[in-house]
Amino acid sequence: MVAVKLTIQYDGTGFFGLELQPGKRTVRSELAKAFKALYKQPVTYINASRTDAGVHALGQVISYEPPLAIPIGRLPEALNSFLPADIRVIGARVVGRKFHARYDAKAKEYEYLIYNGRIIPPHWRHLAWQVRGELDLTAMRRAAKYLVGRHDFSSFCAAGSDDKDKVRIIHSFVIRNSSFVIWAGQRVPVISVRVRGNGFLYKMVRNLVGTLVEVGLGQREPEDVKAILVARDRKKAGKTAPAHGLCLHRVCYN
Amino acid sequence: MVAVKLTIQYDGTGFFGLELQPGKRTVRSELAKAFKALYKQPVTYINASRTDAGVHALGQVISYEPPLAIPIGRLPEALNSFLPADIRVIGARVVGRKFHARYDAKAKEYEYLIYNGRIIPPHWRHLAWQVRGELDLTAMRRAAKYLVGRHDFSSFCAAGSDDKDKVRIIHSFVIRNSSFVIWAGQRVPVISVRVRGNGFLYKMVRNLVGTLVEVGLGQREPEDVKAILVARDRKKAGKTAPAHGLCLHRVCYN
Repeated sequence: MVAVKLTIQYDGTGFFGLELQPGKRTVRSELAKAFKALYKQPVTYINASRTDAGVHALGQVISYEPPLAIPIGRLPEALNSFLPADIRVIGARVVGRKFHARYDAKAKEYEYLIYNGRIIPPHWRHLAWQVRGELDLTAMRRAAKYLVGRHDFSSFCAAGSDDKDKVRIIHSFVIRNSSFVIWAGQRVPVISVRVRGNGFLYKMVRNLVGTLVEVGLGQREPEDVKAILVARDRKKAGKTAPAHGLCLHRVCYN
Repeated sequence: MVAVKLTIQYDGTGFFGLELQPGKRTVRSELAKAFKALYKQPVTYINASRTDAGVHALGQVISYEPPLAIPIGRLPEALNSFLPADIRVIGARVVGRKFHARYDAKAKEYEYLIYNGRIIPPHWRHLAWQVRGELDLTAMRRAAKYLVGRHDFSSFCAAGSDDKDKVRIIHSFVIRNSSFVIWAGQRVPVISVRVRGNGFLYKMVRNLVGTLVEVGLGQREPEDVKAILVARDRKKAGKTAPAHGLCLHRVCYN
């Protein structure tokens, strides 16, 4: 018996997050309906990463053992025909039965977008966090350097986490000026914060970004981040950045 | 007394078009509320171009005589504070009292986006028309050449138009491969159709694009466009392309 690994994208705007919540529209509730419609029976699947309400995904990964054999090349379109347009299966691969989307993940990459200006264009309002005061990217980059490496990230973990071990490794933090393009005549400046790590605690990326933005606004010094890490106290770090700026970019496996 | 010229953007997804419709959320109903909140009285304004439900705007222009003097530099933020996030005033200028957003417009530019592939990424679903069959851009460009210039566009005008004179001038038609960028790791190919003219009839751009797509799919020959123009009969041209691929890009004045 084999398993299937699916790569999916979703626009987080219309979902109350990924996991099931009674009476709410979630990514899982929509996937469950599509699986049932396709396989004529419920399917249990594992997702690589849990995302909150409003968070986007370009490369969420899920794994499951299919109850019926459907040619792998036809699987994305077959599932998409039962899914709403704000979730798309973009890839499908046959993997060994032991493959586990969450436990086998070696790294995850997130990108957080910040619109640093006075008037956020309407089409970006669900994709980037608007920060009005001018951000000092050099200060933010200096602060981010203290976060790279193996640390206890308790200060950046929201209450309600199941994780007992709060140690994680951040491989890289890249903060740069980027731009959105949809229509050819419009290039919208945006600040991109990309972070890659072996795993992230509950709301950790949003808490890291919220803290870096406070540094960028001059409300904290870059060096403060060292003391925040040592404190292992959520109250020492900055506010949680809003969900809609965050996108799960990629999950990496061996 | 002077007049004010505002440039506004909107995400057409959540509106039943621009003009007032009883009981429906339209761009005009939201603007009317914001004007009333700001000026403490209703304001009559002129818009450059009427856009249908689902159509986007990056550069819609409106003009009005302000009942109260508010410093022009503060006007965008003042109005935006009363507007929903899917409409933004991005510019304000003082103009002569005789300025008329519609009559004084010398040219308008629209862009229509087509996603020519099997799986449309969720974040683009409200911004581009998905066409699955492969489009022949060379054939589409040849067809578009026949449309450039001064023509009677009756064959491309939807029923319900108030315009008696169906002659318009198309200055240019540019069809090219472009790409969307939001997140740095994702560049989504899209076909951009840009058209500039001295004015457009009701649903004319969407009817032009629908016809060009039929040419691109090989369902019509590029040369057929000549006969369609001559026929002056809406039934001879292709289907109307959906609204959500269309964006009013710019309105040009002297």
